[in-house]
Amino acid sequence: MKNTIPTLLLDKKKCIQNIQKIFNKTKRNQVKFRPHFKTHQSIEVGNWFKEYGVNAITVSSVKMAKYFSNDWKDILVAFPVNILEIKEINELAEKLKLTLLIENIEALSYLASNLTSPVYYYIKIDIGYHRTGINPKDENIIEQLMRFKSDKLNFIGFLGHAGHSYKCRSEKEILEIHTESITVLKNLKSKYISEFPNLLLSTGDTPTCSIAEDFSGIDEIRPGNFVFYDLTQNNIGSNSQAEIAVCMECPVVAIHNERNEVIIYGGGVHFAKDFLIHKEYGTIYGLVVNNTDWSQSIEGCYIKSLSQEHGILQVSDEFLHSLTIGDTVHILPVHSCMTANSMKEYVTLDGDVISRL
Amino acid sequence: MKNTIPTLLLDKKKCIQNIQKIFNKTKRNQVKFRPHFKTHQSIEVGNWFKEYGVNAITVSSVKMAKYFSNDWKDILVAFPVNILEIKEINELAEKLKLTLLIENIEALSYLASNLTSPVYYYIKIDIGYHRTGINPKDENIIEQLMRFKSDKLNFIGFLGHAGHSYKCRSEKEILEIHTESITVLKNLKSKYISEFPNLLLSTGDTPTCSIAEDFSGIDEIRPGNFVFYDLTQNNIGSNSQAEIAVCMECPVVAIHNERNEVIIYGGGVHFAKDFLIHKEYGTIYGLVVNNTDWSQSIEGCYIKSLSQEHGILQVSDEFLHSLTIGDTVHILPVHSCMTANSMKEYVTLDGDVISRL
Repeated sequence: MKNTIPTLLLDKKKCIQNIQKIFNKTKRNQVKFRPHFKTHQSIEVGNWFKEYGVNAITVSSVKMAKYFSNDWKDILVAFPVNILEIKEINELAEKLKLTLLIENIEALSYLASNLTSPVYYYIKIDIGYHRTGINPKDENIIEQLMRFKSDKLNFIGFLGHAGHSYKCRSEKEILEIHTESITVLKNLKSKYISEFPNLLLSTGDTPTCSIAEDFSGIDEIRPGNFVFYDLTQNNIGSNSQAEIAVCMECPVVAIHNERNEVIIYGGGVHFAKDFLIHKEYGTIYGLVVNNTDWSQSIEGCYIKSLSQEHGILQVSDEFLHSLTIGDTVHILPVHSCMTANSMKEYVTLDGDVISRL
Repeated sequence: MKNTIPTLLLDKKKCIQNIQKIFNKTKRNQVKFRPHFKTHQSIEVGNWFKEYGVNAITVSSVKMAKYFSNDWKDILVAFPVNILEIKEINELAEKLKLTLLIENIEALSYLASNLTSPVYYYIKIDIGYHRTGINPKDENIIEQLMRFKSDKLNFIGFLGHAGHSYKCRSEKEILEIHTESITVLKNLKSKYISEFPNLLLSTGDTPTCSIAEDFSGIDEIRPGNFVFYDLTQNNIGSNSQAEIAVCMECPVVAIHNERNEVIIYGGGVHFAKDFLIHKEYGTIYGLVVNNTDWSQSIEGCYIKSLSQEHGILQVSDEFLHSLTIGDTVHILPVHSCMTANSMKEYVTLDGDVISRL
């Protein structure tokens, strides 16, 4: 059965295998699994984690926390707290165990004066990505934040995100970043553990969590993208192409024999516009795969550009001649978080629709 | 009143001025105005056009046509017809005057066999953009499509989209493309007008429609982006910065004095990820402007990168020192169509919420 409009297919079996793989790793390493739900943003997909005993999650916005708040009672909002959302934060803090991310005294002071229920907080440490977080050398600020006195605010530890692992292209590079970045956190723990005996360390981007095997000293990991994986993670070395659990299905609307191009209904509003530099094809926005076996790429076939609703495929002679107007093609996304966010729902291989935020 | 989460502000006055500007041009040139609604995708914004006597619109998907189908009775779907949506096409054709875009015999034959109500069709001609459409030299195909006999299919003319005008950086370049691209259409009209005396020509991207003054020989224009404009159009030369009618408002969540960076709540899921190359700043994803006067950029302040929920601003010393956690900043989008598609609603300067598809 072909889907008639651009559709994000979800292979539930692969998705559950991905969950199981990371779950088993957390068991082996005795580290808490607090999966990041920003990739799937779906109550139903979230429920698949519950079968593995997962009871705490990570999200990246207050809006997402609210969406999951009837199903999860221990939620970390892993984004520098937005104090303008104090009303929603208070509503959440009243109904569940809410953990926030703090990296400046202004936000902490504001919360102390305006919270109506207690919350927990991690201090966000810059462990090498340099997007945000406190420089680990800024001990004055760190100490000011961890020693802040408020009956509504409970300091629980340090959190980092090694987002610079996305620049890696091999296991070796990923492991180097893993070791360096968790060392930053472990040094802080050593320094302050006597003052805060229950101090926790939280880390976990998808590349390091997929590849690393040693999480000693870390208390909690929070990968998210692994639930679906994508071409970007495959390019980094986090996963095999066979593990990618989501795939776009798009109708063919025009065929240009003279330049080996195919126009699909499926553009920037469907795929989003993340791209990657493929070693053979240059800039690509997706890879064409076999309709029923997404581990098999169709040689020489990829999205070369996207406009709002159009996707332009560069294709091989063989693939070009196999296509007819009204066929659908299957395309692995470059960045599954962004594609899933654009598509707003999943269709399983059995044709069931799974909703999301 | 600050908005507490990333919000797409809409200056209704500027928007209506933009509509009026193009409307006046169509009056002067006696060319039909069939605005493209893919940018705003809002019934309410659409209604602002009705005051200018507009009664026919353009959309880029069957889904969008359906959304507007209670309010508009003459809709062109300016996208190569997706025959897999025959059910929805028949539903629309039954309730309104539906015009489709044809560029191959397969789609036309399929429609002839499967339509239950009559539709109109333009033949899509490649007038230089080379995204899709028929090469104007392929007269055999063009003639086959225009002479196709079916009581459900009415050929009305040729349609082109000069999307290559987006590569222009001056009025002169835009006017060259305008002249070249409409000449392609006018030559076809001259050739076939005796056979089809009512043959129409439809064109109209925002750059050429904003800059050109001569539309003689053209019957209909279909610009869309002009309703809001954006930094991309400003960079091309289509509009002044003062004409940009939408602006993002985003909360400040972290300030990094040591590297003149500010983290805002507002990422790729809000702005979308179109970028442009600014002559001073390099790659930018948005420009910071004065909160109340969007025509005034804040020197040296722009979005340098976006992740899912985070925006990273590069800012000047002066702007950095003026900011506090919990402030909001105002940012002009690079590509308003994509930002509006991500945001899903508008908030006017009076605080009214305007919904969209």
